[in-house]
Amino acid sequence: MKAIFFVLLLCLPLASPAVAQESAILAVLNQSAIDWNRGDLDAFASSYKNAPDILFIGRTVSRGYAEMLARYKAAFSTREKMGTLSLSQLEAQPLDERFATVTGHFHLERSAAGEGNSDGYFLLVMEKTAEGWKIVRDDSTTLGAK
Amino acid sequence: MKAIFFVLLLCLPLASPAVAQESAILAVLNQSAIDWNRGDLDAFASSYKNAPDILFIGRTVSRGYAEMLARYKAAFSTREKMGTLSLSQLEAQPLDERFATVTGHFHLERSAAGEGNSDGYFLLVMEKTAEGWKIVRDDSTTLGAK
Repeated sequence: MKAIFFVLLLCLPLASPAVAQESAILAVLNQSAIDWNRGDLDAFASSYKNAPDILFIGRTVSRGYAEMLARYKAAFSTREKMGTLSLSQLEAQPLDERFATVTGHFHLERSAAGEGNSDGYFLLVMEKTAEGWKIVRDDSTTLGAK
Repeated sequence: MKAIFFVLLLCLPLASPAVAQESAILAVLNQSAIDWNRGDLDAFASSYKNAPDILFIGRTVSRGYAEMLARYKAAFSTREKMGTLSLSQLEAQPLDERFATVTGHFHLERSAAGEGNSDGYFLLVMEKTAEGWKIVRDDSTTLGAK
């Protein structure tokens, strides 16, 4: 019994930091989906770093927390338009102790009145800030409606 | 004259590191387009980090330098399919001294035999390695043919 305990102890320093980083990062994203599905865009937005230099990459690049929140509130002005968000194939890939990327897919289940379902994939860059892991770059690509 | 020189000297330590980082990064990407347009895919690929954990984000995530190079060589097997690459709206955004992101647009000018023109935008994550700045994440989105 004692021997097994020491073997576990020896393993911990190797496995722990990367696993802890990944689960802390994925917890932020899973919480953001829970917040979205409660209809709380302000809580959802808190998964992003509150800074003017965060970036959203599409045909054009837009930047900043305030603009992002205003855009979300304009595009998802009703509970029907928000629909139900689910994230899948989530994977965190560390860059170093302060930065990591996350890849995954999103699915928005919506009624026809809410503009129908939406699907896509994303690459996020996340930073470990004093307030925890936050998204600083978001390149989300929406695929054609299925 | 001497006074102006000293004013310039005082400014240099403030402006220099970020500007130097941005120009070093953009030089790598501009060189990669020159290499592409010489038809040299091996030289083009050297703008990526030669590592098994680099990532290419699309509907699926693929990884690794070797797989990337094999994929490029399969998809761009002739000079006509390579066409002429131009990068525009390039902007480097530092994360810290070791990591930065780059956003921009690509345009591939190709004959009908080369499968026609292709356009899109990208988010790259770049790392300062012993061999210089290298791409470690590539999320390139191709837009519908124009």
